Amino acid sequence: MRVVIDAMGGDNAPQEIVKGAVEAAKEFNLDIILVGREEEVKNEIKKYDTTGLNIEIVNATDIIENNESPTMAIRRKKDSSLVIAFKLLKEGKADALISAGSTGAILAGGIFLLGRIKGIDRAALTPVLPGKNGPFVIVDAGANADCKPNNLLQFAMMGEVYVNKVLGINTPKIALANIGSEEEKGNELTKQSFELIKNRINGFVGNIEGRDIPNGDVQVVVCDGFTGNMILKVYEGVAGTIFEILKKEIMSTLRSKIGGLLLKPVFKNFKRKFDYTEYGGAILLGVDGLVIKAHGSSNAKAFKNAIRQAKAAYDGGILDDIKEELLKINIE
Amino acid sequence: MRVVIDAMGGDNAPQEIVKGAVEAAKEFNLDIILVGREEEVKNEIKKYDTTGLNIEIVNATDIIENNESPTMAIRRKKDSSLVIAFKLLKEGKADALISAGSTGAILAGGIFLLGRIKGIDRAALTPVLPGKNGPFVIVDAGANADCKPNNLLQFAMMGEVYVNKVLGINTPKIALANIGSEEEKGNELTKQSFELIKNRINGFVGNIEGRDIPNGDVQVVVCDGFTGNMILKVYEGVAGTIFEILKKEIMSTLRSKIGGLLLKPVFKNFKRKFDYTEYGGAILLGVDGLVIKAHGSSNAKAFKNAIRQAKAAYDGGILDDIKEELLKINIE
Repeated sequence: MRVVIDAMGGDNAPQEIVKGAVEAAKEFNLDIILVGREEEVKNEIKKYDTTGLNIEIVNATDIIENNESPTMAIRRKKDSSLVIAFKLLKEGKADALISAGSTGAILAGGIFLLGRIKGIDRAALTPVLPGKNGPFVIVDAGANADCKPNNLLQFAMMGEVYVNKVLGINTPKIALANIGSEEEKGNELTKQSFELIKNRINGFVGNIEGRDIPNGDVQVVVCDGFTGNMILKVYEGVAGTIFEILKKEIMSTLRSKIGGLLLKPVFKNFKRKFDYTEYGGAILLGVDGLVIKAHGSSNAKAFKNAIRQAKAAYDGGILDDIKEELLKINIE
Repeated sequence: MRVVIDAMGGDNAPQEIVKGAVEAAKEFNLDIILVGREEEVKNEIKKYDTTGLNIEIVNATDIIENNESPTMAIRRKKDSSLVIAFKLLKEGKADALISAGSTGAILAGGIFLLGRIKGIDRAALTPVLPGKNGPFVIVDAGANADCKPNNLLQFAMMGEVYVNKVLGINTPKIALANIGSEEEKGNELTKQSFELIKNRINGFVGNIEGRDIPNGDVQVVVCDGFTGNMILKVYEGVAGTIFEILKKEIMSTLRSKIGGLLLKPVFKNFKRKFDYTEYGGAILLGVDGLVIKAHGSSNAKAFKNAIRQAKAAYDGGILDDIKEELLKINIE
């Protein structure tokens, strides 16, 4: 398998990106194409022993920044690392693309430079989140602020394929994010989507309320991108806030400092469990190629795990699976 | 001030409800009307010294359960404690109503039995949540699954009045829950609502993303009821899940048990800070009367705090304020 990497995307590029890529090349036996400013990337690679590894560098003079208009940047910055990486993927010179750069630009690149799978109406950003009883995905977590029921049906199907092949869950449970558990609850979108999904998706278990999402008993949470982004960010925000407050409180007295010291393994274990770096990145489902958006603040380990995810998606043949399943759920 | 209480609503009714009501009567110097099964309520009141308190009991033979269709129940169960309580409020025999019963039935009662303030198109459920830097409200947290921009404008105005008068924040910050901070971000609803709100609400500070909501730097989070309910429940769900996991981990080894013991004050302090019972209940803004929905699992303390909230809303004259502000933001 050949993986193309946007070496300049993310807060820790190119250092951590290159490091993660070199480690992935070794560990997963992959061919790597690093796209970025040649000198900078070369200087990073030099730091590691790459004997026997197949790592190619493709020069790209430009970089797309987080604060740029994604569509404009993708159209105009032809020499950016991200656009060149997309071109290589599109031309079949790579089997997957990974970037820790601007989410918007990766979405725009996926849709405009790569294109959607025939029959898929909308691409969906699909992050993996940690839950109490195991990880789960949200489809869509922000690519489409407004959706139609048919989009949600396709999200459900793609989520099912992905979770099955990449998280290795044979019979994943799929649920519709909603504000009540009964079928008739929700807004116009969820009511109509429930109707559509219930007879077409095998693993569909009905609605899931916000308070039950963190349990991780359901592996695919289906929703429009506005709702999904809100769930994702409140999820991260509340968890972050709680630990920030706890940390401050623990440092406030000698007694609590000692307590905190004794609980260090507990917090560490917990952090590991709730650590996004363990799960890699968010896949862009529905585009005609494997595209993974790694977390912007990815370190080498997180980036390596995002590459692992791409490999699992490739080995599982999820693009073919999605095309096949699409025929089954197709609605007139 | 005279407060009418649904003595039969909630998981701990009538025991904790009556207890909380008696305490409130004493502490806040209020007249109380308890509506419920006379014998049961009397038996509860007997437990306390009510000398000098003005507590009336109004008999109601029926109870609305949580699993009933709210609209049906409100229409048919004329002898239920909630319907009778609403009647007393409507007739001016009380100045506020508090119930820990079915949220749906309280909403339906507010809309059908009491009616909306003239000019307000939708009533909004408005709970108070704990944030890192202070409490904040969500308007709407579930009364309206589908909303129009004008509804959100009215929610923003009502939230501003409420937070000002009940939480005592002079110049509250009001923000639109959204999936990006820039004005042009979001779905159709938030884009149009932003336009509408920005020139009409003084304290409007723009969009707020999910990850920033827990900070509590913004005191009024405005959104449609679907989004608000999702935020509220993910908020509660993540916090609950984290503490559940931590508790289990702390009990797993001797070392962590000792650490947990030393951190007891920290956790207690934290719990108090993140405890809904401190903040009472959710007000139903937009109906022509003061209606507070207390948490279903309210104990006496939580219920007493919900009564305190009603008193603050009454003393602050929020109904008149809303009517007055409505004239200012009125759109053609």
